[in-house]
Amino acid sequence: MVKVAWIQGKSQGTIEKNLSYLTQKIREACSSITPDLVILQELCLTDYLAITEAPENFDLAFHKDAEEIKHFLALAKELSINLVFPFFEKVSPAVYFNSLYVIDREGQINCHYRKMHIPDDPGFYEKYYFRAGDKGFQVADVKSSAGDSFKVGCLICWDQWFPEAARINALKGAQILIYPTAIGWDGTASPDIYQDQLEAWFTSMRAHAIANHVFVIAVNRVGKEGHLDFWGNSFCIDPYGRILERNGQDETISHLDLDLKVIDEANRYWPYFRDRRVDAFSDLLKIWVE
Amino acid sequence: MVKVAWIQGKSQGTIEKNLSYLTQKIREACSSITPDLVILQELCLTDYLAITEAPENFDLAFHKDAEEIKHFLALAKELSINLVFPFFEKVSPAVYFNSLYVIDREGQINCHYRKMHIPDDPGFYEKYYFRAGDKGFQVADVKSSAGDSFKVGCLICWDQWFPEAARINALKGAQILIYPTAIGWDGTASPDIYQDQLEAWFTSMRAHAIANHVFVIAVNRVGKEGHLDFWGNSFCIDPYGRILERNGQDETISHLDLDLKVIDEANRYWPYFRDRRVDAFSDLLKIWVE
Repeated sequence: MVKVAWIQGKSQGTIEKNLSYLTQKIREACSSITPDLVILQELCLTDYLAITEAPENFDLAFHKDAEEIKHFLALAKELSINLVFPFFEKVSPAVYFNSLYVIDREGQINCHYRKMHIPDDPGFYEKYYFRAGDKGFQVADVKSSAGDSFKVGCLICWDQWFPEAARINALKGAQILIYPTAIGWDGTASPDIYQDQLEAWFTSMRAHAIANHVFVIAVNRVGKEGHLDFWGNSFCIDPYGRILERNGQDETISHLDLDLKVIDEANRYWPYFRDRRVDAFSDLLKIWVE
Repeated sequence: MVKVAWIQGKSQGTIEKNLSYLTQKIREACSSITPDLVILQELCLTDYLAITEAPENFDLAFHKDAEEIKHFLALAKELSINLVFPFFEKVSPAVYFNSLYVIDREGQINCHYRKMHIPDDPGFYEKYYFRAGDKGFQVADVKSSAGDSFKVGCLICWDQWFPEAARINALKGAQILIYPTAIGWDGTASPDIYQDQLEAWFTSMRAHAIANHVFVIAVNRVGKEGHLDFWGNSFCIDPYGRILERNGQDETISHLDLDLKVIDEANRYWPYFRDRRVDAFSDLLKIWVE
């Protein structure tokens, strides 16, 4: 059994306030039990900065040596948790990524993932800020407090729409896929489309759980930022596609115990990986088949 | 607008009775309008023969020159419809496939697909009967009665669990994915699992529609055959993942008009194909990443 927790948070507006807010929320998540894994939302230390193209927003990025990063490394060590920490990463004044660290229980960086699929549509101008990830798909080998290890496939937001990303993580042995996220309604569509958009998002990731017989956890933000209304609805799905938990649109801390043996059961019931026609999949490497 | 129709049928037990039953149902589906596409269920002329491994069941296969095939070619021509006709195909006494023809409005074979992913689990012993398809993924270029053409990605049942299969069809230009199917409950699981299985099946294909911005139509059978209870629930999903129609567990003829312009709209709203990391997808061609 793996004890997971996530924080569906609301940006407090500034880095300083978010650091304090998240620290308090993480402590709260660890107050009665010690989770094996605590997951924060995408770009957790800032507002969703890609709402606009503003040169000054590059000031919101963090170099790996930043004090704020050190703070969360130390916090993970103090609380003895594995912590998924998504952040706006500055490599140099010229190169930035939308990244996450999986920080281990010793406060060391266990895994470093850079978002592979970068969106760009009105209100989500990510291609202005982030170079697409250069590290490929990353599966973290994580140690629980009981000393067991489990594998966490690291993905971020827009990656959620790509079955290929989920599949490659599963092929690399991921048992839990995590999607720190910042998705919401942009106020341009009619409200009767809102529910369809939310359901498309939810259905898409639920299907990754089913197709790959893995657990899937999405951790979204809540709150209004400019014209964006982040829809929350963070959730965990099991390897049969069953909904283990689904948040509303409030700030929430969720805890779940995941029984990884369900992965074996699901594979025995519907053994997809036995039958994949890898001999006939080469078109997947094309942009389009012309 | 493309006018589609499907027949969620119940096997009548023998080839002779099924031929008569399906002929009547097809005529009924074309009685007031002429659909552009009529879809029948998997292995439509027989019971679900793979319920057991029985050498005599190979007698239920059809060579391309069989009278029964000629009957449906002539019927498509008479009614001026494109007809998706799934059947147990005999190539020789040594080689058999689980196949479908897309028959055109002139009664000619437009497309021939052989099921690429073959299941095998208790009650669904397909690997005993069918060699896995040797033709790759097939997208039919179909002409409507108005003279427009549209593209139909041809898939069969177990293919539904593989995001790769849906994706390759979409990359080849498919606008509508069709899944003639024979799926049901096998009586071995507890009834409280039944709904989960049905939802996993439905969610999986609904996600193909969302991930690829295509229409998805599944046509399943109904009725009890031995210990199998075929669950019907044939459906059509639009490129946003919206449910346009979902049958119950009765024999049903469904008609829908599909507005293919929705595909363009959905791609403009969430343009996934712009961002697929084909440079990082080579692991998809592996059975497992070791």
